[in-house]
Amino acid sequence: MSQRRTGRRPGKQDTREEILAAARDTFADHGYESASIRRIATRAGVDPALVHHYFGTKEDLFRAAAAAPIDPATFFPQIWAGDPEGLGERIVRAFLGVWEDPETGPAIRATVRRAVADERSAVLLREFFATLVVRRIVHELGADKTPEEGALRASLVASQLFGVALGRYLLRLQPLADLPVETIVTAIAPTVQRYLTADLAGLPG
Amino acid sequence: MSQRRTGRRPGKQDTREEILAAARDTFADHGYESASIRRIATRAGVDPALVHHYFGTKEDLFRAAAAAPIDPATFFPQIWAGDPEGLGERIVRAFLGVWEDPETGPAIRATVRRAVADERSAVLLREFFATLVVRRIVHELGADKTPEEGALRASLVASQLFGVALGRYLLRLQPLADLPVETIVTAIAPTVQRYLTADLAGLPG
Repeated sequence: MSQRRTGRRPGKQDTREEILAAARDTFADHGYESASIRRIATRAGVDPALVHHYFGTKEDLFRAAAAAPIDPATFFPQIWAGDPEGLGERIVRAFLGVWEDPETGPAIRATVRRAVADERSAVLLREFFATLVVRRIVHELGADKTPEEGALRASLVASQLFGVALGRYLLRLQPLADLPVETIVTAIAPTVQRYLTADLAGLPG
Repeated sequence: MSQRRTGRRPGKQDTREEILAAARDTFADHGYESASIRRIATRAGVDPALVHHYFGTKEDLFRAAAAAPIDPATFFPQIWAGDPEGLGERIVRAFLGVWEDPETGPAIRATVRRAVADERSAVLLREFFATLVVRRIVHELGADKTPEEGALRASLVASQLFGVALGRYLLRLQPLADLPVETIVTAIAPTVQRYLTADLAGLPG
């Protein structure tokens, strides 16, 4: 399935695709931390400077490789800045915003569809979730929570948000598919709030 | 993609497949209520008695067409029989049981994967959910709840349960993928309980 070794001399578009394919393989095989730009460049048979030229930082390249239409980092400051009681509501609203948006919505639907169908894409989405979402949530929760507890809370939040996305946008279950966004926010924000902040009985760590 | 008109004289396996394909098309096009066994038999070019012979009742045929490995009806009595406070917990445990079971687990994973990838399969899963799950939950909730409220509660429950399934079994997000079942039951049962029984502010109806 790889188109990296065609024997043709690559044009600009080919080079970009070669780097992306090498990045996908490297991130999936070695994880985000161990996947250096140098390693990816070597795999693609190009100079590391060219990787930076096309894709910017390693994190930018990772988002492109994982086909993530948004940078979760851009949401974190505004989500965590407000009152602690509104945390769940702000998270649900930001998450649904990405799926409802005519620019990012189709892209994130395609990404999740691909991850459900294809194991390599699932590995990339997992790595993306673990690196760019869970770690930041653990950081934001603060030092009084263990990393294990933070990761558990993050994945419970994901279980609710991904479930709404699956039901509303991918399977289009009724009435979930046609509810106003604000009805969903009202209904599930307390769930997200509880997963992030409440005592969860039987929590490990 | 249809293999219903091959020109070959069908053997037993072919007849079974022809009926299943006709059932999928008919249920997807007309919905469960309007899709009679007679209509499906006509579409498959067989006698209605043969449909009953191969698949039993219309509901049995529907479950086969939707590739549903379980009959939700078998769970409802035991789930609703116990104390009302344990409702969420019994639902989560029964749901995870189907996904964890070595018989039904792979089948339900395949069904959901297919529904995410293919619109016709999604239509069948939606129809299955609306007919065999939502209506029964509305019935069990009792006459003091409107059908609209019951359907909303059912789809919120689905958003949490399907999200756990997507994260744990299809995407394998950590730590969700490796948590003991009982930890998940403890964490999400209160969510399901709340969606079914609590006052939800801003609820339609």
